[in-house]
This record gives sequence, structure tokens and C-alpha cells, in this order.
Amino acid sequence: MTTAQDLSGLEVGFDIPARPGMNETEIQTPCLVLDLDALEANLRRMADFVVSRGLRLRAHGKMHKSVDIAHMQMAIGGASGLCCQKVSEAEVFARGGIRDILLTNQVRSPVMIDRLARLPLLGAKVAVCVDDLANVPELAAAAARHGTTLGCFVEVDCGAGRCGVSHPEAALALAAAIAAAPGLTFEGVQAYQGRLQHLPTFEERETAFAASLAITRAVVDRIEAGGLPVPLVTGGGTGSHPLEAASGLYGELQCGSYAFMDADYGRVRGQDGGRLDAEWRNALFLLTSVLSCPAPSRAVCDAGLKAQSADSGLPMVFGRDGVRYVRWSDEHGDLADPDGLLSVGDRLRLVPGHCDPTCNLHDWYVAVRGGQVEAILPVSARGKLF
Amino acid sequence: MTTAQDLSGLEVGFDIPARPGMNETEIQTPCLVLDLDALEANLRRMADFVVSRGLRLRAHGKMHKSVDIAHMQMAIGGASGLCCQKVSEAEVFARGGIRDILLTNQVRSPVMIDRLARLPLLGAKVAVCVDDLANVPELAAAAARHGTTLGCFVEVDCGAGRCGVSHPEAALALAAAIAAAPGLTFEGVQAYQGRLQHLPTFEERETAFAASLAITRAVVDRIEAGGLPVPLVTGGGTGSHPLEAASGLYGELQCGSYAFMDADYGRVRGQDGGRLDAEWRNALFLLTSVLSCPAPSRAVCDAGLKAQSADSGLPMVFGRDGVRYVRWSDEHGDLADPDGLLSVGDRLRLVPGHCDPTCNLHDWYVAVRGGQVEAILPVSARGKLF
Repeated sequence: MTTAQDLSGLEVGFDIPARPGMNETEIQTPCLVLDLDALEANLRRMADFVVSRGLRLRAHGKMHKSVDIAHMQMAIGGASGLCCQKVSEAEVFARGGIRDILLTNQVRSPVMIDRLARLPLLGAKVAVCVDDLANVPELAAAAARHGTTLGCFVEVDCGAGRCGVSHPEAALALAAAIAAAPGLTFEGVQAYQGRLQHLPTFEERETAFAASLAITRAVVDRIEAGGLPVPLVTGGGTGSHPLEAASGLYGELQCGSYAFMDADYGRVRGQDGGRLDAEWRNALFLLTSVLSCPAPSRAVCDAGLKAQSADSGLPMVFGRDGVRYVRWSDEHGDLADPDGLLSVGDRLRLVPGHCDPTCNLHDWYVAVRGGQVEAILPVSARGKLF
Repeated sequence: MTTAQDLSGLEVGFDIPARPGMNETEIQTPCLVLDLDALEANLRRMADFVVSRGLRLRAHGKMHKSVDIAHMQMAIGGASGLCCQKVSEAEVFARGGIRDILLTNQVRSPVMIDRLARLPLLGAKVAVCVDDLANVPELAAAAARHGTTLGCFVEVDCGAGRCGVSHPEAALALAAAIAAAPGLTFEGVQAYQGRLQHLPTFEERETAFAASLAITRAVVDRIEAGGLPVPLVTGGGTGSHPLEAASGLYGELQCGSYAFMDADYGRVRGQDGGRLDAEWRNALFLLTSVLSCPAPSRAVCDAGLKAQSADSGLPMVFGRDGVRYVRWSDEHGDLADPDGLLSVGDRLRLVPGHCDPTCNLHDWYVAVRGGQVEAILPVSARGKLF
């Protein structure tokens, strides 16, 4: 009864939400939409920023997980390399032609250390963060096994309270061990204060950054006093990068969210007191459709917890006054629609609460310009957890 | 320089976290682990429950998104069919050999209505929920186009305030329209009160269910008084199913979480006042490894927001007193370890806050028994959002 012909129309296992040339109204929902004009404006703005300050930009690929966007960041965004957080992500970017990759994380599993040490065989310069002396011989042995070289940054806990060393002596001991290990090169210091990024005012971030900078500076001074030059201090994020840039210590920024922005960054204020999303445009949207209008003042859309991350609160409805996203469940979003504006099939652009873990839920970005679909970009490193 | 031989060892693009026969200590982390003994015990327990009450079980596939687990639910779990929430999920289950599928959701996009109507060509009996008269001719036209039949349930909003009709007259009008439409069959009433599931005490759920049941009963009575027999009332979840089972109205249960359980259900109390996770065993774990021990009283593990959903709070550390998961970021989890029990490389089993959206973040379940990996099961419908 079931014949090949019957099934030929089924888009089996390959759920692309759109095709190039389609009108935006034909995109299947829920899916991620990238506004290419906004994305390109953000990339150029950051390029201008780093060029004018003589800094390097190592854009954070953990945010978008897209080889295509990484290449855009290199081509027009002033980036000279990429960061990511996992070895399996780094493999995706290296296979995709990214030639300079820093893992801003520790790698401790023997299997993953081995994969990390094989990555330079793909033609990429690869570096990793280290916060434990015991990790140094593990990395060196793997590099020797594969005849490769791994760059190593000493990770400093400059106030985030996550990974990293905070005592200058411990940092010096690590740097010395790295410098002495065959197959490893001491590249400098990784110092990222993640807790700064979403402090609501620039003044709060400025105060917190001063404390963070003092820790990092003490570490750098101790390493250099120990006879080891520190070639580079790298770190910083979208919310704090003017501070790292002005510090005189950082040589490289690791911003990620600036390219897409999200609702949480929309609540953060920039250097001039204006909202950060007035400086950086919202380029990432979760496109959703109205599924049901069960009562005059409320509607239900098709984007719930499986289409966006819940960690930073509810999404904002973009460009549509009078409609609010008020509650989520796994596959649904409840919309308050007091003026009864919505009908079944209507589309809304949501600005997700937090871009990074939301992008990681999707297989595709639908890139649009002027209401037309221009490209479909895979979320190349989606789900790369190892 | 880069040769095929150099790359042969890279597990390119195919990040399976384990292989059958491996010891559990060799599994790459973070990943989902299923305790097969616990899973099978849960499945058999539910089978006993529904058989002893003469009810049907239509297990909810949106929770696990796994064809293999769906087949286990049929084989040993007393299930006679499966529910899911999206057409693209239903396609995965139908292709995987599930022969009776109910979409417990509205389908309104023309493309997805068309795909829904083609699904019976895969050999499955397919039903869908309807809460709007305008949807009836859309579904009928698609069924006619493909020469198929779609079952339709009238969805009742029995208190959740999401989709569904709540007025008996509206329900009757819908049922009559379905019954009169060629290619559609009126299968009964869908009544799921999702807000009941996580009320902490059984008494609270009992009270809320009484209100919900009154709405559903009024709808069923009105439809039957209108001359249309209601063949089936379907609904219920893990937290409320003893209530639906005892109602005399429901003929089918749609439980999902019972198979795996999660931390949120662990806080819910059963009929006897004991915790629900004492009745249903924790079968799903997020396996994580310690990545850094930067201070004696704290550690950092490799499972953050990209490995679990944040909507229902932090995960519990399973079977390990004295260690707590206290904060997450995208790729890290911060552990309070006041007694300094943890070392780099140590493994912990986390019980995720909410199973459904956590499973949707992963590509694989590693199924273990007695410390050995027995099978690797794909999360077959992971990311199927349409």
C-alpha cells in the first residue's frame, strides 16, 4: 500500500524551514531568523571598534555555532580568530576552514585531549585554557603523540568564581610549566569576567571591572616578573568590551552576543546610558506563528521551551506593540493580546531571552533581507557538547 | 600536510558518547544516561496500572522523542499508541513503525496540514486535535487531496488556559463539523490540564482536577445530547493520572514523564503523601564530569545550559550526599563541595529539572545496566519543531 511514490513528497528527516528566494511569510515556524542587514551592521560596528583601538577580535563561536557566521566575522567583522568552548565545536570550525581557534575552557577527558591535540592536523592553529598543573603533562603528551603544537593560555579567575587560578604564584607556576613543556607554547592569559556582562548600568560594570582588572594585572605582573613575557591578555564580552579595550592590558576581545543580541542584553545600558540594543541591532529572531486564539484577549503561538532557552526570562515581541509573550510550556507560548489584534496564522518575531543556548536548540538559521529569504545557514555545531 | 590518514582517527561529525559494551566510566560527558532497570520498572508499573483499570495508555512521545523507547512502551509498557506534539515528530514516529499516533496539538500551517494528511500513507492511524471550526475544512481538504483519513479530537480547555474550547456549545459545533466532514472522523475529546501536574500535594491536584473534570464532563454531555456519541476522552499526565483513571470519564491516559522522571516531579507528592519519585524511579540522568576544582569547597562540571533546560530549576545531584549543583552558565555547572569530596574527572549523575526540554537538547541516550553500556539510542525526533 505504501509506495515510493506515495512517500516522495515527504521531506523525510530534513526539515529545512525555508528555501532561498521564498518570501518571509512562507517560512515554517518556529525557527530562527537572522536579519542580514542588522547582522552585517553589528559585525562592521565591532570591526570599526577594534580597528580604531588597535585590538584583535576573537569572536566567540559558542554563541552562534555557525561556520558561515564565523567566516562573515573574518571577512567583514574584523575578527582574526574564533573562540569556542568544546573540542567537538572546535572540530566543526576547523573542518569549516577556521584557521585560528581558542578553546576558552579546560579540556580534561583523555579522549577529548587526544582529539584536541589532533586538531592542528586539520590546518588550524589551536589553543586551549589551563587552570591546573596536572593538565600540562596531559596536553603535552597528546601533542607529542600527534606531532602537533598546542597554544596554552593560563586561565585567571578574575572574579567570576568559575574556572581559573586567582593567585599570581599559581599562575606563574602554570605559565612556567607550559613554557617548559615540549609541544606546548605559552600564549598568555585568559581573563573573562562573565558576571559583568549583564549588570544593568555601565557604571556598575565599570566598578566590577576595576576589581577584575586588578586581579588580572597582578597575575600578568607576577608572570612577567618571573621572567616570562605574557604575549597576550584575552577576554571580554559584549557588555564589558569598552572596559577591556580601554584597560591597556587586554590585547584581544572575545565578544559573541554583539552579532545577534538578545532580550537580556536589551535590558543592559551602554556607556552613554542608552540601551545596549540601541547600539547593537537585534539580528536574531525566533519566528513564531499563532496557533490558536481561544479567547478575545489571548492567543497561543507555536514557540515554547523547545525553541528557546528559559534561563534569562521570557522573550520580547519585536515591533508589535500591544502583544506580550507571557508564559511558556514545552511547545507553546501564551500571548497576552488585550486589544484582540492577533489571528491564527499571524507571525511574530520574538527576541529570545538569551541567544547562545537558544541557537543551540535549532538546526538552521533562515537569513532574510527585505522580506525575502537569502540563505539557509546550518547551526553547524548545534549539540556539540563534548 | 593534512592527509586522509592524519584525519582517520577524528570522529568527524558523529559524536557518539559511548559504544555498547563500554564501562560506564568511559562514557563521554556531558550526555544523557538511561538506567534501563529503572526505565523498565517504570514502564511495567504503568502497564500494571492501566491494565488493572481497563484503560488505554497512549504514552507521550514528546517527552523522550525516541522511536526505541516508544517501541518499549508498546512491548512491555502497556501502550497501545503514542502522542506527540508536532507533525515533524509524528513523521519520525510513523517512519519508525509506530502505527497509532495522536497529535495532541493544533496544526494550522498549510504546509504542515498537508504533511499531516500524508502521514497515513506511512501506514499509521493518525489523529489530531481541533479547537477552531476554520481548521475542519482545512484538514478535510488535505485528507481528500491525499485520499487519507484523519481522526479528530475536540480539544477542551479544562482549566489550563492554553488551546482548546471551553464552552459546551462550541465543542458540539466542532464535533458536528468534524463528523460531517468527509475524510475526518470524530474520535472524541482531548482534555489535558497541564497545570495540575506539578501541584505539590495530591490533595491540591484532586481539588483542581474536580474543577477540570466538571468542564470536560459538561462538554461530553453536550456533545452526546447533541446526538454524537463521544467514543473516547483522552488526557492526563504523570502527576494526575490516578485522578483521570478514577474519573469514570477518561478512557485513555497520555502520561509521558513517568518513564524517565525529573527533579521537578521529585518534588511532587503522590497519592499516599510520599514523593512521586519514590513511586517512579529516576531513569534519566545527565552524566557530567568535574572539569576544575579551583578551590577546596567548590568544583565546576561540564554540564551547563546547553545540556539541560533551565525552566524548572537546577538539577539534583543523584546519590551523592554533600555535593550540590548551585549555578549554571552555558557550558559549566558550579558545584558546592563543602567537604572537598570532588576531584577533576569525577563523574556525577544529575537529575535534570525537567525531562522533556532536556532530552530535546541531546542526540543520544546511553542506555546502561549494571555499570555497562547496553545500547545507544538516538533521540530520534530531537529538534523536530514543525
